[in-house]
Amino acid sequence: MDVVSVELGERSYDVCIGEQLLGQLALYRDVTFGHKALIVTNHCVAKWYLAPVEKAVASAGFEVDVFTLPDGERHKTLATVESIWTYLLEQKHSRDTTLIALGGGVIGDMVGFAAALYQRGVNFIQVPTTLLAQVDSSVGGKTGVNHPLGKNMIGAFYQPQRVIIDTGVLATLPQREIGAGLAEIIKYGLIWDADFYRGLTAKLSSLRDFTPDIAGWAIKRSCEIKAAVVAQDEREGGMRAILNLGHTFGHALEAQLGFGTWLHGEAVALGMLMAIALSVDLGYLKFELFEDYRALIARLGLPTSYPLSVSPEALYQSMWLDKKVAASQLRLILLKQLGAAFISADASQAQIMSVLSRFQA
Amino acid sequence: MDVVSVELGERSYDVCIGEQLLGQLALYRDVTFGHKALIVTNHCVAKWYLAPVEKAVASAGFEVDVFTLPDGERHKTLATVESIWTYLLEQKHSRDTTLIALGGGVIGDMVGFAAALYQRGVNFIQVPTTLLAQVDSSVGGKTGVNHPLGKNMIGAFYQPQRVIIDTGVLATLPQREIGAGLAEIIKYGLIWDADFYRGLTAKLSSLRDFTPDIAGWAIKRSCEIKAAVVAQDEREGGMRAILNLGHTFGHALEAQLGFGTWLHGEAVALGMLMAIALSVDLGYLKFELFEDYRALIARLGLPTSYPLSVSPEALYQSMWLDKKVAASQLRLILLKQLGAAFISADASQAQIMSVLSRFQA
Repeated sequence: MDVVSVELGERSYDVCIGEQLLGQLALYRDVTFGHKALIVTNHCVAKWYLAPVEKAVASAGFEVDVFTLPDGERHKTLATVESIWTYLLEQKHSRDTTLIALGGGVIGDMVGFAAALYQRGVNFIQVPTTLLAQVDSSVGGKTGVNHPLGKNMIGAFYQPQRVIIDTGVLATLPQREIGAGLAEIIKYGLIWDADFYRGLTAKLSSLRDFTPDIAGWAIKRSCEIKAAVVAQDEREGGMRAILNLGHTFGHALEAQLGFGTWLHGEAVALGMLMAIALSVDLGYLKFELFEDYRALIARLGLPTSYPLSVSPEALYQSMWLDKKVAASQLRLILLKQLGAAFISADASQAQIMSVLSRFQA
Repeated sequence: MDVVSVELGERSYDVCIGEQLLGQLALYRDVTFGHKALIVTNHCVAKWYLAPVEKAVASAGFEVDVFTLPDGERHKTLATVESIWTYLLEQKHSRDTTLIALGGGVIGDMVGFAAALYQRGVNFIQVPTTLLAQVDSSVGGKTGVNHPLGKNMIGAFYQPQRVIIDTGVLATLPQREIGAGLAEIIKYGLIWDADFYRGLTAKLSSLRDFTPDIAGWAIKRSCEIKAAVVAQDEREGGMRAILNLGHTFGHALEAQLGFGTWLHGEAVALGMLMAIALSVDLGYLKFELFEDYRALIARLGLPTSYPLSVSPEALYQSMWLDKKVAASQLRLILLKQLGAAFISADASQAQIMSVLSRFQA
């Protein structure tokens, strides 16, 4: 088992990475207090993984309740979180309960948010079961829900007590989800570690190359980079924003296509292609990196264009609802070179529109 | 102007107390960033106080929006907070906006909660316009809403950037609200400062004695005590719970009477009488203090009993939904002497029921 520590003073915690960790009761027992716990999951995930987690938590000595949510991003709403709170109150869970998020990013974001606000904050454990959640949303304490007017507009910074990443779950994931997760893994190379990016490019000639060995290596390095960034800027006062490379474009794509049409990682993959194109236009990057990255995501089955049903103008408008908009400026994450990202408010509307128009097909 | 500092490291802030502070633009300008601000208030408060606050914030150089909420505790819900978020998104308020809570405790709790979660946290300023909010809810960072199954069950610890207490607003308050605020002021004497309690007892032979001079003195001392307690235990890991003297009883009274039937301070006044009675029963306090306190709240027009429509059994059940319930024990705040409170799990069901039964009339 590998352990990556997220260093945040009294809010520090471990990310445990390895095969067959789901059922290891010590991983839960060490960070659970009180006498009750609630596992929150969805039907798809429950079918595969609820039994071992429930058994481990019960064996660790806790009274375990299970609450099953409907599946999908469209249910990432306040109303769904409210249903968790109602269940907790009905079952008389007190302030010393522990919430266990068993599922993908949607489950993790909502359960973290529910834990942050239930009786002003209770313990929670992330058990991410998608590749995307393992390398991105389960680490770093961003929690929240969507608002009809914008994705992730309502949320809190709230750190878990532990993250348990069982790489065995990847065997049951659809290839499309593996590809979406790889987009965020590639992101860490782009923004932070050129060697990691080059290693991924060399090792991945198709999705089939993402073997358990390579997965373990790539997940650990991704979590290390995320932990390093979060430790320096927990509440996104500045530097943490580089983790959003491609996300302002990506969120606009998700909003205009309708949330859930593309996977988040798919929208981010194309969003990063746009951010790289803009970085090239502004003179920061060579065109070769653009070509290299486009070829990489193409061979992993990720989108390199968006459909004609979406207009560049609508995308541009959607970008203004992004949380990084400050003082009436669009702030975007760009690359100044491979492995180094920065926040820029330099791009003009014409420059952004030029990029957006280029990827409609 | 008096200033009480709440010392919480990077989350420290000032509580400014004085007459005619509402319209002082420097008090807003010093702690507001970005270029937009939103004042959230209700119709009753707006009639008296919106104009000077709006003018001050605008003069300080900010684009000001105003959002008016329906009045009353029954609107302290997630749905109301959602309406604030929708308005902020519609008006394109970004992460550097500032929310200004102009009103009583209901407004302050909801606006703080809205600020805590809008785009994962924006600045906010408390401008409390009831005595209760001035001495209690506006200081210390507790924010939240009620759930149908329990008061304040959903919330966050989130500190304001400043609290502006204008003692001039007390002139327009109904006497009943002055009484309710005095209950919390008296609480600070009971739990922390015997001399302050004795001073209040000596000075207040009726509500009419609560003159501007005495109000300024009592509000400042109350804020100092609250700041001292919060600085030692921001997130209520332990000691901060003493601020809840009478509140477990009080919340049960509010729930059983129907939220809004009594003012919060009225329920707390009777709740503290019950806590004192229990402290006497358990041998911690002399009966004289019980008599002295009962006489004090009676002459301030605060309730010393609850109606026959509420049963002691129902109150007892309601007490179990309190946030302080841990590991299946009722934890209550009791007094070990005048000016010194502690958390106790010692009282038996029979002892608590005996106290509850005594105050039905």
